[in-house]
Parts: sequence; C-alpha cells; structure tokens
Amino acid sequence: MTQPSLQQLEQHDAFIRRHIGPDQAQVREMLETLGVSGLEELVEKTVPASIRKTDELDLADAAGEEEALAELKSLARRNRIYRTFIGMGYHDTVTPNVILRNVLENPGWYTAYTPYQPEIAQGRLEGLLNFQQMVMDLTGMELANASMLDEGTAAAEAMAMCKRQVKRNKSNVFFVDADCHPQTIAVVKTRAEHFGFEIQVGDVEKELPTELFGVLLQYPGSTGAVRDLTDIIARVHEAGGLVTVAADLMSLVALKAPGQMGADVVVGSNQRFGIPMGYGGPHAGFFAFREAYKRSAPGRIIGVSVDSKGKRALRMAMQTREQHIRREKANSNICTSQVLLAVMSAFYAVYHGPEGLKTIAMRIQRLADILATGLEKKDFSLAHDSWFDTLTIATGGKQSEIYQRALDAEINLRKVGDNALSISLHETAKLEDVSDIINAFTGAAHGLDLHALDREIAAKGPRGLPGALARDSEFLTHPVFNSYHSETEMLRYLKSLESRDIALNHSMIPLGSCTMKLNATAEMIPVTWPEFGKLHPFAPADQAQGYAEMFRQLQQMLAACTGYDAVSLQPNAGSQGEYAGLVAIKKYFEAKGETQRDICLIPASAHGTNPASAMMVSMKVVVVACDNKGNVDIADLKAKIEEHGDRIAALMVTYPSTHGVFEEGIREICELVHKAGGQVYIDGANMNALIGVAAPGQFGGDVSHLNLHKTFCIPHGGGGPGMGPIAVGEHLKPYLAGHPVTEVPDTDTANGTISAAPWGSASILPISWMYIRMMGKQGMKRATEIAILNANYVAKCLSQDYSLLYTGSNGFVAHECLVDLRPLKEASGISEEDIAKRLMDFGFHAPTMSFPVAGTLMIEPTESESKEELDRFVEAMAIIRQEVEDVANGKYSAEDNPLRNAPHTLEDVMAHQWTHSYSRDVAGRPAAWQKEHKVWPASNRIDNVYGDRNLVCSCPPIEAYAE
Amino acid sequence: MTQPSLQQLEQHDAFIRRHIGPDQAQVREMLETLGVSGLEELVEKTVPASIRKTDELDLADAAGEEEALAELKSLARRNRIYRTFIGMGYHDTVTPNVILRNVLENPGWYTAYTPYQPEIAQGRLEGLLNFQQMVMDLTGMELANASMLDEGTAAAEAMAMCKRQVKRNKSNVFFVDADCHPQTIAVVKTRAEHFGFEIQVGDVEKELPTELFGVLLQYPGSTGAVRDLTDIIARVHEAGGLVTVAADLMSLVALKAPGQMGADVVVGSNQRFGIPMGYGGPHAGFFAFREAYKRSAPGRIIGVSVDSKGKRALRMAMQTREQHIRREKANSNICTSQVLLAVMSAFYAVYHGPEGLKTIAMRIQRLADILATGLEKKDFSLAHDSWFDTLTIATGGKQSEIYQRALDAEINLRKVGDNALSISLHETAKLEDVSDIINAFTGAAHGLDLHALDREIAAKGPRGLPGALARDSEFLTHPVFNSYHSETEMLRYLKSLESRDIALNHSMIPLGSCTMKLNATAEMIPVTWPEFGKLHPFAPADQAQGYAEMFRQLQQMLAACTGYDAVSLQPNAGSQGEYAGLVAIKKYFEAKGETQRDICLIPASAHGTNPASAMMVSMKVVVVACDNKGNVDIADLKAKIEEHGDRIAALMVTYPSTHGVFEEGIREICELVHKAGGQVYIDGANMNALIGVAAPGQFGGDVSHLNLHKTFCIPHGGGGPGMGPIAVGEHLKPYLAGHPVTEVPDTDTANGTISAAPWGSASILPISWMYIRMMGKQGMKRATEIAILNANYVAKCLSQDYSLLYTGSNGFVAHECLVDLRPLKEASGISEEDIAKRLMDFGFHAPTMSFPVAGTLMIEPTESESKEELDRFVEAMAIIRQEVEDVANGKYSAEDNPLRNAPHTLEDVMAHQWTHSYSRDVAGRPAAWQKEHKVWPASNRIDNVYGDRNLVCSCPPIEAYAE
Repeated sequence: MTQPSLQQLEQHDAFIRRHIGPDQAQVREMLETLGVSGLEELVEKTVPASIRKTDELDLADAAGEEEALAELKSLARRNRIYRTFIGMGYHDTVTPNVILRNVLENPGWYTAYTPYQPEIAQGRLEGLLNFQQMVMDLTGMELANASMLDEGTAAAEAMAMCKRQVKRNKSNVFFVDADCHPQTIAVVKTRAEHFGFEIQVGDVEKELPTELFGVLLQYPGSTGAVRDLTDIIARVHEAGGLVTVAADLMSLVALKAPGQMGADVVVGSNQRFGIPMGYGGPHAGFFAFREAYKRSAPGRIIGVSVDSKGKRALRMAMQTREQHIRREKANSNICTSQVLLAVMSAFYAVYHGPEGLKTIAMRIQRLADILATGLEKKDFSLAHDSWFDTLTIATGGKQSEIYQRALDAEINLRKVGDNALSISLHETAKLEDVSDIINAFTGAAHGLDLHALDREIAAKGPRGLPGALARDSEFLTHPVFNSYHSETEMLRYLKSLESRDIALNHSMIPLGSCTMKLNATAEMIPVTWPEFGKLHPFAPADQAQGYAEMFRQLQQMLAACTGYDAVSLQPNAGSQGEYAGLVAIKKYFEAKGETQRDICLIPASAHGTNPASAMMVSMKVVVVACDNKGNVDIADLKAKIEEHGDRIAALMVTYPSTHGVFEEGIREICELVHKAGGQVYIDGANMNALIGVAAPGQFGGDVSHLNLHKTFCIPHGGGGPGMGPIAVGEHLKPYLAGHPVTEVPDTDTANGTISAAPWGSASILPISWMYIRMMGKQGMKRATEIAILNANYVAKCLSQDYSLLYTGSNGFVAHECLVDLRPLKEASGISEEDIAKRLMDFGFHAPTMSFPVAGTLMIEPTESESKEELDRFVEAMAIIRQEVEDVANGKYSAEDNPLRNAPHTLEDVMAHQWTHSYSRDVAGRPAAWQKEHKVWPASNRIDNVYGDRNLVCSCPPIEAYAE
Repeated sequence: MTQPSLQQLEQHDAFIRRHIGPDQAQVREMLETLGVSGLEELVEKTVPASIRKTDELDLADAAGEEEALAELKSLARRNRIYRTFIGMGYHDTVTPNVILRNVLENPGWYTAYTPYQPEIAQGRLEGLLNFQQMVMDLTGMELANASMLDEGTAAAEAMAMCKRQVKRNKSNVFFVDADCHPQTIAVVKTRAEHFGFEIQVGDVEKELPTELFGVLLQYPGSTGAVRDLTDIIARVHEAGGLVTVAADLMSLVALKAPGQMGADVVVGSNQRFGIPMGYGGPHAGFFAFREAYKRSAPGRIIGVSVDSKGKRALRMAMQTREQHIRREKANSNICTSQVLLAVMSAFYAVYHGPEGLKTIAMRIQRLADILATGLEKKDFSLAHDSWFDTLTIATGGKQSEIYQRALDAEINLRKVGDNALSISLHETAKLEDVSDIINAFTGAAHGLDLHALDREIAAKGPRGLPGALARDSEFLTHPVFNSYHSETEMLRYLKSLESRDIALNHSMIPLGSCTMKLNATAEMIPVTWPEFGKLHPFAPADQAQGYAEMFRQLQQMLAACTGYDAVSLQPNAGSQGEYAGLVAIKKYFEAKGETQRDICLIPASAHGTNPASAMMVSMKVVVVACDNKGNVDIADLKAKIEEHGDRIAALMVTYPSTHGVFEEGIREICELVHKAGGQVYIDGANMNALIGVAAPGQFGGDVSHLNLHKTFCIPHGGGGPGMGPIAVGEHLKPYLAGHPVTEVPDTDTANGTISAAPWGSASILPISWMYIRMMGKQGMKRATEIAILNANYVAKCLSQDYSLLYTGSNGFVAHECLVDLRPLKEASGISEEDIAKRLMDFGFHAPTMSFPVAGTLMIEPTESESKEELDRFVEAMAIIRQEVEDVANGKYSAEDNPLRNAPHTLEDVMAHQWTHSYSRDVAGRPAAWQKEHKVWPASNRIDNVYGDRNLVCSCPPIEAYAE
C-alpha cells in the first residue's frame, strides 16, 4: 500500500483542524442530521447561486503554526527599535511582567466578550471601574467613561458632545489650540468637516474667537509647555463655549488636574500606563466629564448597582445611550471600547500605587530637567519656560544636522517646524539617553557632569514645573490602589478577578453577530513581540519596514477575502470603519460634483451603528422596510429610490442579513442602488458567513468594513480592542484616509484622518495575518462552510423545542439563527432575559438578546465549536424549554421558578434555608456535565434601573465593602 | 526640601518590594507583635551569634526587572541555534502553542506543589495519569510511574530495582550494551560504582556474560539500529537476569513495543513529546515496569481510588514507598518527579492523538529514509541496515571534513568513533535539511531529486524499519487521547484541569521545608526564550557561550550566597545533589587513601532523603539522637564519633534544623566531625533562612546542595522540575561530577556523572539567576530576614491557640514553625489530617503534615506572603481551633463535625438534604473573605487504602465516567 507523500506528512494545513471545532466524523453526523450530502450541497442550498463564488480564494496555501510564526518573525525583524523620544502622545513604557503574562497573554482575559451579561463579568467590570476611578482622580473630573478608541477620536467625540451641550449657542466654530497633537487636530478636523462644524486652529492665547461653541487645548502642550488653563477656560465659558482638555496621564501625576482649572471634558490616552506603543495601538483613550453630561457622553460607563439580593454589583450604566438602541438618534457611533487596554492601565496604577506613580513621574521630570539644563549650558534655547517631560529646542538652523546625528546614534527626535526639535522623556529613558541627546545637539562629547546637574536640581526642586501648577490634590486614595504592590498579591488579585468571568477558555459564547471564535495562541504570540510592541507610530518609515510589508500582505489577503481592490487599515473599530467608508463615499461624490447626494438608505434590520454612522457624515437616514422574513423589501427599496432619486448617496446593508439569512435579492438590491447612482456599503459584520463562498466586492458592494475582531480572530478582549479596516472598489481607492504625520501609501491627507494612528491598532494586525496565513485558501473557505454547518445544526436541533424566526428559501440559516421567544413569553411570562440569565446556570454566556428583533436570542456558534459543545448547548436549551413549559403548566409558579431566579449564585445554592420549588442542583448545576467545571455567576440578576437612578461610576468607598 | 536623587528615583531595587510580601508598615506592625525593635534585633535573637555573618553578601546591587531581563537577554543571544541532528536522546520538537502558553507559561500550572493533598490537585493528577497511560501504551508495559528525572537516572534506578528483584541471583554484574547513549552509560556506571555493582559494557549480541543480574539495552540503538530484542531478552531471563530497555518514545509510535518483546523495565525520556531541549533539561524520564515490581519501583505512581463518598478520585499510590517514610531502608533517594514536563508531554499526546503522532513519526522516518537513500546513491555506506530516525554513516576517512562542512552550514552532526557520523532526524527537520546534510557529505550540490526518492519510498514502504518490528498494537485508545484535537477543546480541557488545583496564584501554600515563595514572572520569562530552549546539550561549546557565561555567573552567585568555593550545576534535583555531595566526599577520601571511612552520621530529625542518599553510596547510616527540642544531641554525637572513629565519612545535618530552629551548637557539631576527620554535609533544604545571615560554607560545612526550586525561586511545577546543585569547599572542588560527552569546566569524568545532562536542567537556571540578580545583596538578605519575621509572626499568632513544638533559645523559630496537634487529638480525636483537610475548606493548601514529627503541622510562610494573607491563615487556624474545642466539648459529635468531614465539596454544600450539625456555610465558606474567591476541592477525602488495595494506575475505562 502506498504511503502518504512527504508533502502530505508535512501537514502544512494542520492548523485548519486546530481552528475548526468539528472533526470529519462530526461533520458527517451533522450533515446527516441536516439531511444534506455534503458541505457543498449545504452551501448550495444556503447561499444564493447568483452570488456564489466559483473561483478559489486568491490566497496562499495554508502554513503550519511554526512556519507562519517564523515567516512573521522574519518580517518583524525588519523593524528596527531605536530609542524614541518623539512624544506626541506615545511614549515607551514598561508593562509590568505580572500584568503582561497574566492579563495581556492570558486567554482568561483576552477572549472574554463585552460585559453585556454583568453577572458573569464582574472581574473585568471591576477592572474598568478601577480605570474610571483612576481617570477621574488624575483628571479631577466628576465622571469618566470606560474608555474610548484613542486620544484623537476621544477629542472628536468631546467636540460633538460639547456641541450638544450648548444648544442655545448657535455658533458652529470649534477652536483648536495649535499646540495640540497634529493627529488629534486632523481627526477633529475630519469629524468637524462631516458634521458641518468650522474648525479654527490657532494660538489660544491670542486668537480665541468670540463666537464659538468649544475649545480644545492640550495639557501639557504638544511641544511641552505647561500653562495654567484657568483663565482661558473662564474666557471660553464666558463666551458660552465649553473646553475640552487633551491631557497626558503621566503628567497629571505631577500636575494640577484640569478639573481644578474648570475643564468641561478631559480626554487623552492611557498608553504610557504600561501599554506597549505597538506602532500606534491599541491603547485606550479616556474621556472624563462633568456629571451633568452623563446622559450624552459617548461610549460605555460602568456603574455600581445592586443585584436581586441587594448585593453590590457592577454593570454598564445607562445602556440606553448605546447606539444600538437609539439608532438614528444616536449621539455617536462608538460601540467598542478598549477594555483589555483600559484594565491593563488600571492594573498598572493598582500595582504601582500613587507613590510608585509619583516616583516614575518625578524621574521622568528629572531627566527632562537635566536635559534642559544641559542643553542650556551648551547654549541652546528652550522654546518654553515650563515643561513636564517634553522640551522643544531651537536648533539655530541645524535642525537636520542634529536630527541626523541623533538618528546615527539610533535616537528618534521630533522635528518641530523648520528650526526646532522636540524631545519627550518617558519611563524607559535613561540618563545615558539624555547624555547622548546632548551629544547629538552639540556634535561632540558634551563634557557635562550630569550627576552634578541632578544634584543641583534635586536641591533646588523641579525646574520646568511652575510651582502653582504642581499637583496638590490626593489621587488614587482608594484601597484598591494601595493594596496589591507585591507580585504575589497582584497575581492573586488578577486571578480572583479573572475567576469571576466567563471567557472562551471556559465555554462557548454563541453571540449572534459577534462571532466569538477561537483566538489561537499562535495568532496571539506575535502581539507581544517587542519588534511589534516597541515601535513609535511616528518613527521614520525605514525603521518600520517589517510593519510596512506585513500591512501590504494583510491588505492583499483582506482584498482577496472580500473581492475588493484596496484596503485601508486605519479604522480601529467597526464603527470607525463604517464612518471611514461613508467618508470615502462622500469624498467620491464630491469629486464627481454630486454633492447633492445626502441620503443613506438603511434597512430596518440594520445594526444601530449604521444610521449612527450616517448621521456622523450628515447624511439623512431613510429607512427601507423589511419583509416578514427579515429581508429587504425590494418594492419599498424601489419606492424609496424612486422618491429620492439623485439624492441617494448610499445603501448600507448587512450581508448575510442581521437576521442570519442569505437574502436572495442582494444582487438586485445592489444593482438598483447603482442604477440610481448610489454606492453600496456592505456591512462586514457577518463576513464569517461569506469568505470563500461569496465576495461582497464581486456581488455588488463598493465598500465594506471588516471586523477583524470577529471574522479575523482578533479576540474581543472583554470589550475591545477591535479593528475595522475598510475594503473598497478601485473607484473609491483614491478616497481612503490619510495621516498628517506619517505617510500612508496610496492615501491623501485631504481625505481626512479617521484614527489617531496611521494604521489604527497596528500591533494586533499580526493576529489576522497569522489567521489567514495558517488557514490558507482552503482553510478560510472551510471555516465559512463549517460556520454555516454549525449554525444550521444548532438551528435544526433547537427547532425541536423552539420556533426559529428566519430561514432562507431552502429552510437553512446562514451562520447564525434567531430563536423567537415571544410565543413562550406569552404562554408563560418567561422573558428572553430570564432565559439568557438561566443559561449562565449552565455555564454558558447568553447569545445576543433582542437584536435584531425584540424577544429573540440570536445564536452564532462559529466554526470553532465542536459538536460536543453544540450538543451541550442544545441540551441546556432543551432543559430550559421544559422549565418554561413547567411554568406555563403551573408546575412552577410565575414568581418562583429556576428561570425567573436565574442566575443562581454559590450563595443561593448554599443557602441555609431552601425555599424554592426546585432543587439546589436544578438551580446551580442543572446539567450532568457541569460536575467537572463551572464558572459561578458572581452576582444574582443585576438591577439596572437602581443603578441608573443612583448613578455611581467610581470605586465604592471602603465601608461599602463591609456590607 | 531636597528631592530624591535620580539614582534613588531609578528604583533599581524595585523588585525587592515586589518579591517580599509585607510592606514597611506591615513589617513594623509584625515586629511590634513580636516585641522586637527591628529586623536586626530579630535576627540577633534568632540566629546564634557564633555563626552570624558580619560581612555583606558578595553580590552585585539589585537590578530592576527590565535591566536584569536585558542583561540576561544579551547573554542568551550569545547562544547560537544551529540545525541540530545529534540525537542521543535529545531532539528538536514543537511545543504546541496552546500548551506552551496555557501550561508552561501559566502560574496556575507551574506554581502548584507536589500533589500530596490530592483533593485540591485532581487536575494535575489527571495529567499525570494520562502520562502514565501514554507511557504504558507506548512501551507495552503493565505499569508506569509518574516520571523520573531523566533517562540516565531512570536507567540507573532500573538497574537498582532489577538487583532487588532478583534476590536469589547473587551476581553483581550488570551488562550494558555498548550502543546505549554514552551519558546513560556514565550515569549507570557511577551509580554501579557506589552500589558496588560491576558494569560490563559490550556488544550484547556477542559479549553477554552468563552471570549477571541485569542488562540495559537501547531501542533503537544510540547509533540507530533497530533490532528485535526478543531473543536477547529471553537469554537474559534464562540467565536469571532482568532486562531494562531504554527506549525512544517517538520511535515507539512506529515500532513494536519493548513490552511485547519481554522487557522487564522500559525507561526513556519524554523530551521529544513537545518539551524544549533546553540544553539538557528539564524533561521527564519515564519508567515502565511489570506489575510485579510495583512495591519496589522508584518514584511516584498516581493511582485511582475513591473518596469518602465513593466517587472516583486520583492520588499518589503506595506512598509508603516514598523515601521520607522508609528512610534508611529506602530503595532510592528519588523524591521529586518532573510533573510539569510529564503533564506537558501527556498533553502533547492528548492534543495530537494517536493519528497525529503516527503522522509525525512517519514523517521523521520518511526523512531518514530519504537521507539514507540519498547518501547511498552518493556511495556512502550505512552502519546499520535498520533504523527509525537515526543513521550512522561511514565517512571514508573524511569525518572531520564532513563534520566541518555541516558546521559551516550551521548544522550539527554527531561524531561516532573516528570514522563515522550519525544523524538523527526529528519533528522540526525539513527536507531542506536532508538536502543540506547530503551536500555536507558530498561536498557539493548533490543533484538528487529528493522528491522522486520520496515517491519511491512512499510506493515501496518504509526502508529502515524491519517489517516484523512495525508496531501492530493499538495505543492511546482511551478517549482522553481522542477528544481534544481542536485548540478550543484543548484550551478548555487544560482550563478545566487547572481549575481543580490550588496553586500559588490562589493562596498561600505554607509548606514547611518546601518554601513555596513567589516565582516572579520576570524570572519565568527567559525559560521560554528560544535562545535557551532550542539548544542541544551536546552542541559544540562555542554555540553555547551564553549558557556558559550564565552558568559561571550563577555559580559565583551561589558560592557567594553559601560561603563555599565552587558549585556544580549538574544535579537536577535535591536528592541528586545529596548523592553528588556524598560521591564527592567519597572520592575525596579515596584520593586521601581513607577508604575505610564508610559511616554517615545522620540526626534522627533528618529529611528521609539523607539516609537514602547515604545508602546509595554504600555508606552505613548511624543515627545521632536529638534532644527534646529537636536539636542534635551533642553528647550522643560525641559518643558516636568516639565509637566509630576513623570510619566516619560524613555528618549530614540540615540547618536550620528540620524542626525549624537555629541550633546553637552547629559550629561545635561541625568541629567535632572535622576533628574526627569527617566531612560535614549541610543539607540546604532550609537555606531560605540563611542567606545573608549565615553561610554554611563559613560555619563548618564542606558541602551543601541547594534546592533551587525552593530558596532560589524555581517553581515547584506541581511536583518538579527542581534543581539541586552542590556547593563545596575548595578541597572538594576536584571531585565534582564530569560528563562523558560535553566537557564541564573544572571537573573530571573520573568523578562520575550524576545526571544525563552536563548542567542538569539548564534551561531553568535562568530563574535563579534572575532572582539573585534582581534581589542583589540587599534583597537576598532582606528576604531571609522577612522569612524569619513571617514565620515568627505566624508562630506568635498561632501560639494563642496551639502549642508550638520547638523554638530557639530566645523563644523564636527560624523560617518555619511546628504546631503540635497531638494534645488536641488526645482531647478531641481530631487528627492532624482532619485539620489539614479542613484548611482546604478555607481555600488553603495544608502545611507539611507529620514531618519531621508525627502529629504536627510545619508551617513555612516564606517572605513572599503579605501580612494580610498570614492573618487570613491565622484566622482560619483560630476558627479550626474552636471547632476542635467544640468536638472536645461535645457541641459536635466525633463522627459529624466540620473537621472529620473535611474537605467539603460543592456537591456537599449543595446537597438536597443537609444532615450535618453545622451549616452549609460553615462547611464550605467558613471565613468571611472567602466570598470573593475560592478553589473548591474536587473530591471529598480520598481513601488511600482502597486505592492501594485496588491498584489502578491507568486511565479508567470510559464507562467509569458514567457513574
């Protein structure tokens, strides 16, 4: 018998079997259950022939884990890590090793989902509450949200919120101080352009207009000056405007808090609190504000509430603000925050404590003082007479010369104008660096005794910091920031938080539309390679050749997966991708002179971000009806097209639909819009059902965003980071976002800037690169097929007990299915929330609830779940169905039943008196397979209303823990 | 006010505060509790003035985590990683990433202790049972133990066991086939020499003697031949001997199992099942044997038993075999196994499954076939006509030339004799490597079409493998090896096992004599650097310069810490260190011509390994009495010296004593032995109480072993790996162990070889290097002081409720304390075991039980525990004390009380009917602070007797899970 060839034995495609849950035998069983002969038939019966892809994906063959890692490592090595003092919001920092390994590299943290189900998310919710407390303390503000995408978008969101807050002020002018970071200015300008605001950039001391609705200041200034903002803020307030201060977190350790100067909003980045620079991200932006704005602030806020037993518990507060509820009345299209990074920076503060932070800040400041003194002694003059960590030096016409000498010493400085250089010191800077910088300026050994300078400064007190601006208020006084300073204590604190949360390392998280699939270790490993982590986003291009090549390859891969022609990697979240796509469409029409096109058609079934994004580019949203199967009502579409004619800019449509169905009419829909001169935006949320099977760029899309944190394996991080690149057709390619500091190939700064960093959250892009590289063309297609198989298998099994809402023409669903619980509710009073919470008792995270249809659960198992896990889930749902029946038939009362009381905590099942009509086992371990392992909900059902009525978004005082 | 200097702000000593649990304020409080003014006074009152160190440690100042990592990285970079085909029991392999990150890099696994408390160790016990099953399946043997230190020592242990098994056979001859790995032969020879066995090495086919007690064979042979051993084994059996086969695990996937050929013992290494080579270790040796030998087999065996509720549960079987019980009647001094590595290799098998392993093995074999064919076509001749992965080639006088050409291509081959080269292929070998090797042989491009060769071989079937020796038996048929092949499933399996175990990431493990202190992340990070992991132990020295320098520095550091003059890093466990130390003493006396010295004095309080080690060097153990304080009875010592005179070789004494006391008389004791011409072996088990405070090399020791996995922060790994280097005085330096393959500086092969690898478990030595580097001279001393403080604080607090057994002359203990529970048992019937198990209900791992005194608990908190954690432990002990009282006073019955029923499982506290006289909360969460987090025992109290009477040491059949 002939044996396999070496080529076959190599198993270059081994990863495909690791990524995909069901093995061959399981696939056969599942196909049998569905009554189809093979995956091909399943796809034929599911995906409309009109869009089905006939050619194979233009991707390489699969590479094994070690091969792919080696290939990526060789790219990574092409990045060169210089000592970098560019500043501008990015600084080298030390990620404490205990946090690095136990949070950033730990699937218990990085595979968790957004904490929509707070009872099984108390661990990261506490991390986020710590983050909010830290931001409030350092900024001196009353409230802070649970993070934004980056400093630039945080500033832009602040502008929008300020506009909403000053309704009586009719001015459209937003003034930006010229000493803000240039990328922040660019992002704010782009947002303003599409909102229709007027941006004035200038010297706030001299050029402040009298009519304005808001001002953005940087503190300390981008080039380093530290000034008292009190008077300026007062002047703006007098003019009826509000002031946003973009502040540096580390400097706030030493400086008077902007809140004490009257700031209305304070934004910034958490990056230098232990988050690798990562060539631009991901980091967490922060957003602190007056309590009065709490109902209009963007993003998520974690608040303290109580559970059904009155025990303190955390959850996302005021969720009505979330875009998916308000839709076209939304204030912002932001949904993702940066949970993983936000909690990491909060842990950095927890680990160092206020005293540790003060030492770090004081050391940075000291280095700046020594550098300033040294340069002055060498007859260089400083641009400002105050500073924290950043100095700007007049170069006497020798800017290039000095800059180059620094480069030769592997040091990056910042060029400011034509005759100055700026230097930002940071946590990892050393005295040796200061010495080398002085040498670069002088062009020879400086001969100074820097230790002597240090002694002088230590004796006299800080040089750069105006005494009046030194922080005099306490911060981080809460016990959590003063308890875990040994590694042992910190490790256990992290572990105790982790142990409260369900993540993918415990069980399936079958979230419809959110695609919680495997985040393979091999994909995650490169994220913490220093070659990717330690690069400044504004480092010279020749130091980032590894990144550049990785971007190029990833862009090709994503284009191949989607059938489009070009990809922009800048948007750092799906929401930003939608926005970037609409901006590109708008620019395209501007170029064509069709500026009258201001209508965006959006089906009723769309994700809430779609209309919110349309609003952000000042498009008018026209809703297109859906038929009773959740499909776009083509007649209504025609009517709307008829009605609005050449005002139609775009249709935004999700495919397969948010109802989990491959609509038959998609090609026709696209053609109708194109005929009307409009562009088709295909929301890539459900791309996991398409790759290798159909390509939106081929069946009618002009642009799509891709949720790399869904289809392309970037983990959800407990609610961020994500990435939302957009893929576009050739005609939209000239309109992709540029960047004001770093040149992004094939883009134009005139197109605007979407994110603070040129390639968004660059350091997590290796995850998607690895995924596609290891799956190859065969694997990417098979993932889609199995995603469809798994969804249909679950749907078929559940259909025994539940009614499914939507299926395609052959009775199949796409990659997710909608279970309609309304009939059950009517019969029994048991709600979808009861069922969602009850699933926690089985150790499962609930599926998506009441989206896109109220009273439903949307289940997306993904291709990574094995048949055993699907069967366990189905079994849980079957038991639940019987419980609902038992409520309906009176076996259980409406008040006391395992559903209404769910989730059950350890406290519950250990109660002294058992007063329920069902057993403790039914309460806490209703399925046999739970004996081995279960994550217990840390809280009973949490009372959202109580928390919103009694809003507390900071760490409760220590007495509260004594309860 | 003058500010701190930059130097102070640098915080180079920051790690000291991370490593040490109590902060300054806590230290003050604890000192106050003890009534001493400061740490200095505490040390003065604890450590006898006669031995107290007055000078400071000869170590560098502390370095911060990042500095130390950078320094070590620069050393690591001096290692050069070639493509290595040396074989000899070490092969490059792929650690599956999901195992790498979630086991090897996960404190949940690596900080666990040996599973002496099985109720909170079911996770790793299952991992070990899988390991045993895997070894049994692949070797075809009836039983396997839970791992040995390495292949060499496993073979040596097999020799010793064989000798014991053939009592009627009086021969002292052990025959070793010459084609065994040379390091195995060296280790076996050394052991034999000191046991008094005669080793004959020769060609087993031709030179087998008629009188012998055992034979060691290598399968496949070290140079590659695969031969049927059946006949040879039969001949040995006829001669009344037993046969040990040292087998290669990967080859067994393809080859007939040695058990099927009649082997009595099969040993080997698990290394190539996913364990990095690490320049020699740590790996796990395996040891499989006939069931008949179960009571005399060395090491630990995991067995299946039941708990008090009749539920299946695992634990270490037949613990009476452990050396700490049998002491001077012990069969072996082995205690540590290699749990972390054993479970990793079992997980490798779980993840790949039998089919995956077959593919890997077939691919290796194919590469060997292609290489063999290619070389033959180029007119080279093979030494053997059979092979699995290893070929030996006659070089026609060109050995050096070919070897050098390979080196030039960054390829390492093995020189065999003067005219042959050997090549071992492995999991990471590529066809390109095969091609390059042929080129090295031919000296020019070989011009062969290797793919064509591959096709030929695939068509004809394997070349090297004799058909009769192909494996025809099934293996790894148990479900555990056929269920977790996707990464998601594997990840969850690992997590569910991890969640059953208490490790240091959950709570204190206050194990007297075992020093469970912080294993800092920064210490662990270098272990998985490829620069340390991918080096073959027999790679040419110039490729291992990084290791060489690291060893040199570590040796200096350890010498500085102990006051000795030289250090041998070869012993890879404490037991091996003891053995190595005694061997050095023996060699020393041989050189002096004092061979009559054959008595080893050992105090009654010694660790059980001491007498066992003495037995292994054929010394006669003479026990020295202890007084009622646990101190050496100096009068008795004098009497014994008087009695045995110049037969005294050594005294082995632990300092501070195993009773946790700094004996006042230590200096006198050492002097008495020296005067008698003997050597003093100071057991380093309690070195954590000494460093910086007293140095055994200065107060009278001639040699000490150091448990790097205790005092020097190598984590316990759930029961291994450890490292046991020895430090010696100048006069013993000439007698340190050498190595037959790789030259170890300052050693002589005539001194024998202790471990298979020249520097033992080299790849974990960076942990201790990092620890000492980051603590520096100040930190190392402070760690000792705080270890003493913590122990005394706990002792003082516990003395409210318990009687302490031993204290020093001022009423203080050293770094641990002994709680005497015998009075309580007398009064209440509650045993030390009841209390140990009850501590699990509080979330604590029990302290050491009944060592060194029956009926006691020995508590060692270490310096890494904070005062809060100590207070929690004290509180738990206080509650327990009251519970004991309540049994004594009749509130609880003797049969039904929280102690007797401990530990309580989730099942218990969720029981439908609650029948106990105490509440569910008292059962399961008796302390208030447990609401936040607790690891629940996976089993009720486990019945050891049942398990030993019904010995099952393999995975239970699947039906057993249905219970």
